[in-house]
Amino acid sequence: MFIIGERINGMFKDVAGAIKKKDRSVIQGLAKKQIACGASALDVNVGPASDNPKETMEWLVKAIAEVTDATLAIDTTKKDVMEAGLAACKSKAIINSVNANQDKMDALFGLAKKYNASVIGLTMDKAGIPKDAEGRLELAMRIVAACMEHGIDMSDLYIDAVILPVNVAQVHAREVLKTIRDTKMLADPAPKTILGLSNVSQGAPSDSKALINRTFLAMAVASGLDAAIMDANDKDLVDAAITAELLMEKQLYCDSYIDAYRKK
Amino acid sequence: MFIIGERINGMFKDVAGAIKKKDRSVIQGLAKKQIACGASALDVNVGPASDNPKETMEWLVKAIAEVTDATLAIDTTKKDVMEAGLAACKSKAIINSVNANQDKMDALFGLAKKYNASVIGLTMDKAGIPKDAEGRLELAMRIVAACMEHGIDMSDLYIDAVILPVNVAQVHAREVLKTIRDTKMLADPAPKTILGLSNVSQGAPSDSKALINRTFLAMAVASGLDAAIMDANDKDLVDAAITAELLMEKQLYCDSYIDAYRKK
Repeated sequence: MFIIGERINGMFKDVAGAIKKKDRSVIQGLAKKQIACGASALDVNVGPASDNPKETMEWLVKAIAEVTDATLAIDTTKKDVMEAGLAACKSKAIINSVNANQDKMDALFGLAKKYNASVIGLTMDKAGIPKDAEGRLELAMRIVAACMEHGIDMSDLYIDAVILPVNVAQVHAREVLKTIRDTKMLADPAPKTILGLSNVSQGAPSDSKALINRTFLAMAVASGLDAAIMDANDKDLVDAAITAELLMEKQLYCDSYIDAYRKK
Repeated sequence: MFIIGERINGMFKDVAGAIKKKDRSVIQGLAKKQIACGASALDVNVGPASDNPKETMEWLVKAIAEVTDATLAIDTTKKDVMEAGLAACKSKAIINSVNANQDKMDALFGLAKKYNASVIGLTMDKAGIPKDAEGRLELAMRIVAACMEHGIDMSDLYIDAVILPVNVAQVHAREVLKTIRDTKMLADPAPKTILGLSNVSQGAPSDSKALINRTFLAMAVASGLDAAIMDANDKDLVDAAITAELLMEKQLYCDSYIDAYRKK
């Protein structure tokens, strides 16, 4: 499982505070902790309140680079903030994210090419998020085609079928699982699949959030999921990811398979 | 999820002791506890050491019937013990189990018809358990055909794709998931699917058994699993089953969906 830690996001109070005080140690601590817990990459999001998002993104990326050369997922809807993050990033970068609107794809796939970055493509467009797998797959196909036109390798494309909170959009979970399964048949080699996992439990009572997250993650791995943006500090969640991949034979069994994964 | 509690089995010390002393209270306690924890049915197995398995099966079934009218899965490889259990059972019974050998199917489907029992059909025959989903599906198809010949309704057939321990047969887990998915296409209406879940973690270190069980169960539900013979007393496992079915939209979401399920 390619785990992208979600914690460096200005919507969290500690991150917002660190951004305000320009305190690199808080950001660097979060980076190191997530990697130690099993994250292969780190999401970077300045949050909704940032006054100077370009400068903040650059500062975050540079602060993280001082403690790790892990892949960074530059998480913003603004093109200039995205380019500031990509330009500052010395390790591999992932554009998080692009939707299936042609103008967005043209703009961001151009950036991906320029900075040799991977791209997360969301199965949504101006009309919103389709309710069923068929609609999502149509948008995924549109993203795959645009990717090919821009000369981006399939190994650099992650299709995100966009999971919605189960408490308000229960029918979507099953459709997302089907989309993950069928995305693998859109091209050969196939694009990768990813989820912004925590969204599934958004709004659910706090005592069932973690249970919903780790159960859905195992179900998604059974459907062929390759990657997730998730809470890497949640040990039970990472253990579920490792175990699900073990059962899909993506890691060889040994009695200490959990420790073996973390030591990799 | 149709949960069949696995605890009334003579391979457990407390059950073996109760059988020896003819102590109904131990058996009845186990029956009530499993139902309270979320089991819809109870497996009944005299265990390997029973001197008089026919009489023991009859005694177990009658002891359980004093405290619950839940469905009982009569779990034995011996035809005379099976018939003793079926004859003693006043509630709905499930024959656990039949393999895909023609002589076994003819004998046990005859009993199923006579006692209006459901049947668990294992995808294995004299040659053993096929390594891949294709081989398992061939045997499942043979079972479906034999069922139809004997006039048994598809709603009374559970196909068990036979999960093996991940520590010695890791490749099988993925094939079992595929078998579960494809079994749904063998007939219309489709047979149900079931797993003897605990087998997946047999031989794994005790601190990872429960994790492997609940992770594989969520994966199997995502693949369309209807029922499992499992440890109903494992709260985390039952919670995972309930949550996985919630995400498949088999139960309507409410904030207290776990409690709502248990109260049903």
